[in-house]
Amino acid sequence: MSLTAEIIAVGDELLRGTIVNTNAQTISQALAPLGIDVNFHTVVGDHPHQLQEALDIARRRADILITTGGLGPTYDDLTKQTIAEVFGRKLIFHPEILEEIRAFYTSALHMAMPDNNRQQAELPEGCVIFQNPVGTAPGCAFATDGVHVLMLPGPPIEMQPMLQNWVLPYLNNLTDSVSVSHDIMTFGIGESSVDQLLHEHLTYGENPVIATYAKPAEVRIRITAKADTAQEAEALAAPVMEQIQAILGNYVYGVDVPALEHQCMALLKEKGLTFATAESCTGGQIAQRITAIPGSSAVYRGGVVSYWSSVKNGVLGVPAQLLEDYGAVSEPVARAMAEGARRITGADIAVSVTGVAGPDKDERGNPVGLVYVGIATPTGTYCRKTDSGQRRRAWIQGLAANHAYDLIRRYLTNLPL
Amino acid sequence: MSLTAEIIAVGDELLRGTIVNTNAQTISQALAPLGIDVNFHTVVGDHPHQLQEALDIARRRADILITTGGLGPTYDDLTKQTIAEVFGRKLIFHPEILEEIRAFYTSALHMAMPDNNRQQAELPEGCVIFQNPVGTAPGCAFATDGVHVLMLPGPPIEMQPMLQNWVLPYLNNLTDSVSVSHDIMTFGIGESSVDQLLHEHLTYGENPVIATYAKPAEVRIRITAKADTAQEAEALAAPVMEQIQAILGNYVYGVDVPALEHQCMALLKEKGLTFATAESCTGGQIAQRITAIPGSSAVYRGGVVSYWSSVKNGVLGVPAQLLEDYGAVSEPVARAMAEGARRITGADIAVSVTGVAGPDKDERGNPVGLVYVGIATPTGTYCRKTDSGQRRRAWIQGLAANHAYDLIRRYLTNLPL
Repeated sequence: MSLTAEIIAVGDELLRGTIVNTNAQTISQALAPLGIDVNFHTVVGDHPHQLQEALDIARRRADILITTGGLGPTYDDLTKQTIAEVFGRKLIFHPEILEEIRAFYTSALHMAMPDNNRQQAELPEGCVIFQNPVGTAPGCAFATDGVHVLMLPGPPIEMQPMLQNWVLPYLNNLTDSVSVSHDIMTFGIGESSVDQLLHEHLTYGENPVIATYAKPAEVRIRITAKADTAQEAEALAAPVMEQIQAILGNYVYGVDVPALEHQCMALLKEKGLTFATAESCTGGQIAQRITAIPGSSAVYRGGVVSYWSSVKNGVLGVPAQLLEDYGAVSEPVARAMAEGARRITGADIAVSVTGVAGPDKDERGNPVGLVYVGIATPTGTYCRKTDSGQRRRAWIQGLAANHAYDLIRRYLTNLPL
Repeated sequence: MSLTAEIIAVGDELLRGTIVNTNAQTISQALAPLGIDVNFHTVVGDHPHQLQEALDIARRRADILITTGGLGPTYDDLTKQTIAEVFGRKLIFHPEILEEIRAFYTSALHMAMPDNNRQQAELPEGCVIFQNPVGTAPGCAFATDGVHVLMLPGPPIEMQPMLQNWVLPYLNNLTDSVSVSHDIMTFGIGESSVDQLLHEHLTYGENPVIATYAKPAEVRIRITAKADTAQEAEALAAPVMEQIQAILGNYVYGVDVPALEHQCMALLKEKGLTFATAESCTGGQIAQRITAIPGSSAVYRGGVVSYWSSVKNGVLGVPAQLLEDYGAVSEPVARAMAEGARRITGADIAVSVTGVAGPDKDERGNPVGLVYVGIATPTGTYCRKTDSGQRRRAWIQGLAANHAYDLIRRYLTNLPL
């Protein structure tokens, strides 16, 4: 019989729609691998009676209640007081926590701690304390009448590390086992094809658990194994991960990496190479995604957004005759763009994208979704023609950028382009 | 006494964390201006007993229940059946709706309608039908024992137009009045300063209602007026909007526009001008944001992502001596970058950004957050020095891109730069 959980978010800003409840999503994703079923998400405002009502309902239908928000120092942060009341626990002042909060103000915020932070050092009697190195509000947990109550801060940058470092180990303890998760990242194959391939060629057991998460043209396969120790769990996961990687072959671009550009950055660093970009319909997205990563200047020199043909010609040196003969959306132009970017930046390799992002056809009648992706390398130039069909503009642009990164990682790992 | 609402989302994919509950946010934002208080958000899985429980709780504490999801044609789409049962309504088959669904399959999906879509044409007896021009599932509403129950489809692209076209008019009827909303968009002033200025200089009434929504360095001020007719509501909103615009002056960059780049695009189009970009620490974000908008090729020629100094020199023509004397993060380099982008693209104006996005200082010891933003125009070049402090990389990059767009809109509207 698996444990059930309810996630209760506290905050008027959620009910007004100022922010979206990403915490519920993050926690739900993290709990699934532990075999804990999340049955309800609830959002209440900064009003004790609403939270009280939600707690009364939740304690009857779930084994684990996780609250987010309402742990701040201001008068409307009432989660701790309300929970203490509902579950009949005294709040105890912890001088050592007050000192930690004071130290956080001095070292990180460069200011004196206001007096009203004192109440953040009060916690329910007999609770487990969850430290918060990136904020002032500690989290905590206690168990009463077979129900576990966990309180986490609302800001995602505080909630997320606390979830990883404290909540998951705490919940792991409840199940008398340890779980480990790994993500196998694929590009170029759809979710239903992944599912079908895995069903055909992989023997599914109960442990490890395999789940797929899809983004446009990307599928993440999460493998979660449970055992008495992390080592044993890893030993359970390892053969299944090997099998999945063998089944999916070259579609797999990495394990436990966030996205294609991160994998490309790692490969380029490893080989001491740099790259450049020449973008038309992606309009700077390839550049923007690599430069969002700290330290990307080690592998990325720069690039050109050649939105107009005159920029393709004048800056990248794409011959005017080529543009006239084939049009901007064509294989010869994609090739010349990549070669031009490589030449003017001096990078080892360069990628290019030219296509029709929509919503309308281009002036030559090329359909929305038609995109040419080029790569220029020391050993030659290659071009991939793709057609994503009549999708949204953002979808077409994101997919085209992914194709460019896919060409880089395939080139660097000696795969067919 | 204002009406209260509870939003109930149905779907296992929400409880597993595969998707985030943006529908609750969208609906909450739309209901606030109507004076309807959203008191709870609830998420349940695709299990009739969970939804039943949520409905039983919600009908006791809210005047309006809005469900999203579970209206699809498959066996686990059980919202309509469960609601019909809980509220004791028969489901009635509507042949004319079946014909609409069949027509949607033929014209939009180019395929024959599967048989199981038939149940989507069954609706609770005596309900108001909400048409769905972008999908197959119609929505609906009925009132019983003083509680209004509204069912909407789950996919946001179907839910959102139904909300605008059917739900808001339906709810407006409940309040015997019509409401209109407008957004005043500002850049360069913080939310607390906006609040303070408005409190000092504006007489707040109950109608129109004024709410502020903050993003980094941007504040959106939403004005919502209610009256018997839309015309009267507009007449109530107009003087308050004028006052707010007068109080906030040049910080206001537009009314009812989604973001700075949209305003710049409109201004450039109006004047028949084009622009170009030269980006270092923003890494392509300025380009990416304008090219995300359909039709941006009318105003944007292209640009250079000059991440390395060699690209600033080799492609943009920034003199090597300047880079050596002042470093890449400096006013002279920002100016030369903008002038270079303007020259090589032939655009009327060009903006440039060079700075330290972090997480580390640059090699000259310039602090994280220091950013120079330049603009080259037919009448001269200008540079703005900004310092956003030790923020996250994405924050610094986004703010710097906003500064670049702010320079464009100020130049085009003859404001001080």
